[in-house]
Amino acid sequence: MKSEFSNILIYGLGLMGASLSLALKKKGISARVTGVVSSSKSKAKGESLKSADMILTSEEFRSSNNWKNYDFIIFGVPVDLTAGLISELPTDFSGMITDLGSAKKEIVQAVETRFPNAHNYVSSHPMCGSEESGLEFANASLYEGRLCILTSPKNAKPEIKDRLENFWRLVGSETIEIPAEEHDSILSYLSHTPHILSSIMADWAANQKTVKRYTDLSPIPLNGGGFRDMTRIAGSNPKMWAAIFGSNRNEIYKSLLDYRDRLDFILEKLNPKNALDPKEWEQFMETSRRSRDYILKNQDDSKKR
Amino acid sequence: MKSEFSNILIYGLGLMGASLSLALKKKGISARVTGVVSSSKSKAKGESLKSADMILTSEEFRSSNNWKNYDFIIFGVPVDLTAGLISELPTDFSGMITDLGSAKKEIVQAVETRFPNAHNYVSSHPMCGSEESGLEFANASLYEGRLCILTSPKNAKPEIKDRLENFWRLVGSETIEIPAEEHDSILSYLSHTPHILSSIMADWAANQKTVKRYTDLSPIPLNGGGFRDMTRIAGSNPKMWAAIFGSNRNEIYKSLLDYRDRLDFILEKLNPKNALDPKEWEQFMETSRRSRDYILKNQDDSKKR
Repeated sequence: MKSEFSNILIYGLGLMGASLSLALKKKGISARVTGVVSSSKSKAKGESLKSADMILTSEEFRSSNNWKNYDFIIFGVPVDLTAGLISELPTDFSGMITDLGSAKKEIVQAVETRFPNAHNYVSSHPMCGSEESGLEFANASLYEGRLCILTSPKNAKPEIKDRLENFWRLVGSETIEIPAEEHDSILSYLSHTPHILSSIMADWAANQKTVKRYTDLSPIPLNGGGFRDMTRIAGSNPKMWAAIFGSNRNEIYKSLLDYRDRLDFILEKLNPKNALDPKEWEQFMETSRRSRDYILKNQDDSKKR
Repeated sequence: MKSEFSNILIYGLGLMGASLSLALKKKGISARVTGVVSSSKSKAKGESLKSADMILTSEEFRSSNNWKNYDFIIFGVPVDLTAGLISELPTDFSGMITDLGSAKKEIVQAVETRFPNAHNYVSSHPMCGSEESGLEFANASLYEGRLCILTSPKNAKPEIKDRLENFWRLVGSETIEIPAEEHDSILSYLSHTPHILSSIMADWAANQKTVKRYTDLSPIPLNGGGFRDMTRIAGSNPKMWAAIFGSNRNEIYKSLLDYRDRLDFILEKLNPKNALDPKEWEQFMETSRRSRDYILKNQDDSKKR
């Protein structure tokens, strides 16, 4: 397929960046894709896996510093690094620019600072993370059927959002526009704070003495699927997530306070000095199930009986 | 395969009971399996799915009250109902008895009250629950490669534990013996309290106004895989779980207090009045990942980079 772009730069060829590169090939997009990686080891890996048409280390890229060779730049690095790179972009850059960041306020601020006038940067957040990281886990179908949230900084040219929407549709994603502040609030509830709760859970269980004693004694793990699923995201890339926690700290703090209030309410119900009403627990479980179905837009309730 | 049993009763042919029945058939065990269900609707469903050789409603079973027709009784009903049924067992019952309950103290107390002398009851807890419930979700391979925890009440004849171990091996499970109190403490950490935290999470997110506004606007769900996985168990059978919460309330309360302390520690780190150290967050994430690998006995750390 003839692409409106001829030279795409994916700066940060990790799991998401490399998956995007593979998705473009799979869809037969004619543009040449250059990927930037952090080390020569990743470069060798990416070359053997054909993760992009050309792969440069960040050092190689920076020695030529040729942003203007590209007509579409996509940042696939952690949020803090993205903000730093934005401040280095040529202010008269004529191509389109986006990123794949999980927190928006910091990125949008960096864009608005760097580009006080009309510009071509609209931020993206494809909702398809994974606890895996690295280009070796890339997958050409990662973006199929996923939601990509678009966030427009001030002074973004209106046509950029439309072109970006088309781009995401091309790799199979649906889009919705959400302003930075709302995005970061939503993500604290649906991703960032759950991540922290998951990490707390892993440590909490692993440090309990009876759990430890029998984990050491048991031929296979003691846990069932519930614990495994709830701690899955505790296995994610620490560097990327430390940047997200820093960048979205205020919203995470607020939502964690809200969670703690709900936890305290339940804790009081469990307090042995209070009477326990089984009907009330059934009601709590029923309501939670409906809440989950609401968030997940589950249509097929019959399966849940 | 010739079985040491000729008539097995599975009292409670839900997902776990019916899966056990199918597993016995799959392994070619010659014993006849009778299943007890709560309603005639379930009976019809079970008969059409061939969930057991014979299916009775609890009313039909109770009108004849013929425990002694069986040489192996397995309770597959919620913990509170199991404790009630134990008090009705003939005290001179000569067959083997077990259950599939997720909390042990209440069951073990019921057994020790009902059988003050030598008896044939050893409790089982196969670690293979699911958020689905009902015999229509039964699966003949459910017990393959899973851990089954055995708990011996006082005065259980020593050979019963050995015979029960053999039985679980027959359907593909490994076993470990854990006393009731330790079992309930471990399970509060690895299953019951995570379940409560999952249910709180679903309600917490579904009641946040920005999450609601954009969930209603978005063409597809806003959440990624992390939230979906972490709230999966919030979709489980409320009746069964209300009974577990009631039965293991003290341990759940203690472990939830412990979790709240850890949450408060992290909350203080996020408090905007404190400086945030990215290195400290990376360390927190790294430690949690190692904690998770420890509980899950993950050997293959290379895959996690």
